[in-house]
Amino acid sequence: MTGKPRHMHLFLVIGNVGQHHGAWREPDSGIELADSIDFHAEVAQRAEAAKLDAVFIADHLAMLGREAHAPAQHLEPVTVLSALSMRTESIGLVGSASTTFNEPFNVARQFASLDHLSRGRAGWNIVTSAFGEENFGSDPLPSHASRYERAGEFVEVTKALWRSWDADALAVDRDSGVYARSERVHPINFQGEHLTVSGPLNIPRPPQVHPVLVQAGTSADGMAFASRHAEVVFSAHQGLPMAKRYYDEIKNGAKRLGRDPDSIKVLFGLSPILGDTQKDAEERQRALAGLLNIDYAKQLVAFQLGGIDLTNYDLDEKLPLDVLPDPTTINRRQGRFDLYRQLIEDGETLRRLTEVEATAAGLQVAVGDVERMANEMITYFEAAAADGFILIPPSQRVDGRRLLSEVIPLLQERGYARATYQGTTLREHLGLARP
Amino acid sequence: MTGKPRHMHLFLVIGNVGQHHGAWREPDSGIELADSIDFHAEVAQRAEAAKLDAVFIADHLAMLGREAHAPAQHLEPVTVLSALSMRTESIGLVGSASTTFNEPFNVARQFASLDHLSRGRAGWNIVTSAFGEENFGSDPLPSHASRYERAGEFVEVTKALWRSWDADALAVDRDSGVYARSERVHPINFQGEHLTVSGPLNIPRPPQVHPVLVQAGTSADGMAFASRHAEVVFSAHQGLPMAKRYYDEIKNGAKRLGRDPDSIKVLFGLSPILGDTQKDAEERQRALAGLLNIDYAKQLVAFQLGGIDLTNYDLDEKLPLDVLPDPTTINRRQGRFDLYRQLIEDGETLRRLTEVEATAAGLQVAVGDVERMANEMITYFEAAAADGFILIPPSQRVDGRRLLSEVIPLLQERGYARATYQGTTLREHLGLARP
Ligand SMILES: Cc1cc2nc3c(=O)[nH]c(=O)nc-3n(C[C@H](O)[C@H](O)[C@H](O)COP(=O)(O)O)c2cc1C
Ligand SMILES: Cc1cc2nc3c(=O)[nH]c(=O)nc-3n(C[C@H](O)[C@H](O)[C@H](O)COP(=O)(O)O)c2cc1C
Repeated sequence: MTGKPRHMHLFLVIGNVGQHHGAWREPDSGIELADSIDFHAEVAQRAEAAKLDAVFIADHLAMLGREAHAPAQHLEPVTVLSALSMRTESIGLVGSASTTFNEPFNVARQFASLDHLSRGRAGWNIVTSAFGEENFGSDPLPSHASRYERAGEFVEVTKALWRSWDADALAVDRDSGVYARSERVHPINFQGEHLTVSGPLNIPRPPQVHPVLVQAGTSADGMAFASRHAEVVFSAHQGLPMAKRYYDEIKNGAKRLGRDPDSIKVLFGLSPILGDTQKDAEERQRALAGLLNIDYAKQLVAFQLGGIDLTNYDLDEKLPLDVLPDPTTINRRQGRFDLYRQLIEDGETLRRLTEVEATAAGLQVAVGDVERMANEMITYFEAAAADGFILIPPSQRVDGRRLLSEVIPLLQERGYARATYQGTTLREHLGLARP
Repeated sequence: MTGKPRHMHLFLVIGNVGQHHGAWREPDSGIELADSIDFHAEVAQRAEAAKLDAVFIADHLAMLGREAHAPAQHLEPVTVLSALSMRTESIGLVGSASTTFNEPFNVARQFASLDHLSRGRAGWNIVTSAFGEENFGSDPLPSHASRYERAGEFVEVTKALWRSWDADALAVDRDSGVYARSERVHPINFQGEHLTVSGPLNIPRPPQVHPVLVQAGTSADGMAFASRHAEVVFSAHQGLPMAKRYYDEIKNGAKRLGRDPDSIKVLFGLSPILGDTQKDAEERQRALAGLLNIDYAKQLVAFQLGGIDLTNYDLDEKLPLDVLPDPTTINRRQGRFDLYRQLIEDGETLRRLTEVEATAAGLQVAVGDVERMANEMITYFEAAAADGFILIPPSQRVDGRRLLSEVIPLLQERGYARATYQGTTLREHLGLARP
């Protein structure tokens, strides 16, 4: 509580050797170790040494054939984060789990257990899943709206389960033989349109009451969900004006629902491509682009644009707007579709779209030396376009290391990043109240 | 490969401070630490020092109000085993997961990931769940037969997913940019009555190809399932003759299906109550019984007997057989019902039933000093009634410690238990071929 009290909140995406789809081809990528927890533990330990709020693992329920060209994420988030809880001391552990293809009782238990294992460091990135339905039955992917409806019920259920044991429910009275006070362990009796769950949870109240709830909705439904439920929101936008607009919308949405806007942290997604000098960094960006298989990169974009065929479009062409399907037909990632539609309207080339997609999954790419990267982050932060950042390095071993060992220390020096952990839980790192 | 090659296979049940429902009341139970991974890591490390094949965690999807009198299992198996993979080096890590209340794609991923994290030490106890349906929708528990049908499909699906990446599927060719050879990553296109899953899995082939498959079916359906799918079977029986009959039936069932009977290991469930002398051990058994709340203990038995009312029966009475419902109406634990029915036919009192249930969840209770315990185990083993044991101590800190520090070393001395690990995977510990 001494010095500048307000600093950036920082998450690092881990779980892969890097986000850029071609970065595994670099000599030092460490790709041979992708299936080894040691690789990820080392990254998490570096992030902890840099006093980040949390590491974060994304999750997808199908590979879509991409394994031919890029490492699919290999290890599963809940297992990896549980393992990392034994290899780290303080840093938050945030993982994605789908509300469409899981049961709330199972998700509630696993995150409650992770919160116990880590003594209050668990976070859940709530995702509705834009693909993978073929691995969960013969039905088509439920509609975007219905996925978010189920997600809303799912979060209500899991929150109620996490609160189903009162804080003083455990008696542990050896003399009387009363282990828990049954009147302090409550059924939840939830009955919704999508879900029916009686409860109580079979795990006593987790240290944080519930894990920190994270979300990244860009669509209208996604933003409404975030404003209502999220404690941390990832912002997937290009450029300061869009980031600022999103930030304000989320905060205002929360306010309209009676929430303190400070109880919801908006983290701007940033993919840092770093070099010794600005020129080096730009050189590195080109080198990374050169590692992409072009047909593959086009397919990535085509998928996000609703499964259209882009094979006959030149990379350096501006895409005509009329290749796009009607936005109302997009049932997978509406937010990503809208973003790319905007970029096409702004006259961007197909090459630019492939880079945004293959480097950073739609997040902002920032290219620069250490000083410039720190300044870029400070600009967003000071403009109140972000409460912090979710950092998604193209390569953990190259950009990720430099980020943690040079950019973050510079931000610490300037008072923008925490130099020591004050609390012990993720909730405390984020300055979020206990629910 | 030197010395006596054939030794007992040994699993230790962990995840709770002890199996006996009253043992948490003992002064040294460690119950205050039940939610701490450190407690369980210490037990697992002791088991590893004793060179056991594996630790094992049970799992249930509801508490049935039992938390008033006994610690419900608190932490969730997949998370705990993932954490333990970082705190142990060699011992197998086996956890229960329900085929009734999970999706196969999710289970396949988590156990594949655990197998990667632990470098080949994962095992899955396949359970069909006898209760907990109220936490997974509004439908009643599916019928026993239909649960086992789904379980059969579930195992076929998960096995196919674990094999969906060929051993040489990963190319990782930096020059050409080919990460995986798509023609060596196969969809599974499974279509059954209960399940439809396209695949492939989004995790490359696990070190053991698939986790060791464990099962504990006592009903006819359960045994048919075990003979077909299991690599390790838990035997829940009272006394040598029943154990021997079960052993032979499982081995013959496997043989009839064309399996090598040695490819399925039958582990006899044993709850060791240990004392300095035989008299001490018997004293301890009585002391433990004295820690049970009697009404609660009666309820435990009543539940297993189909939800009948036993409040008006005296503990030292022999139960009349006609209190029992028609066996064909039992839809929860058929095996446990049959066992208790047999005990009632044999003239056992309600007190005896409560002790079998509350001490060892229906498994054999063995009471003795160290020498006698070792001899008891050798008797079952030499009679070919067991390939080894699943050991379920009433209290980890009391009987569990003595088991690991005295009984196992005695068995090692006599050549019945492994004194050093020969291999590195659970499959190797068990002498099971790679699938
Ligand atoms: C930083 C970040 C991480 C994300 N991680 C995942 C993920 O792990 N799994 C997933 O299915 N979607 C993930 N998403 C996608 C969103 O959570 C969301 O599901 C998607 O944007 C579709 O919602 P929308 O249509 O509201 O935009 C992520 C998005 C961002 C910005
Ligand atoms: C050692 C042992 C451990 C078991 N662990 C579990 C468990 O963790 N979860 C569960 O639901 N059932 C468990 N069971 C029960 C059986 O797996 C099986 O589901 C039950 O006996 C019902 O099947 P049945 O009707 O074929 O006997 C266990 C049984 C034994 C003997």
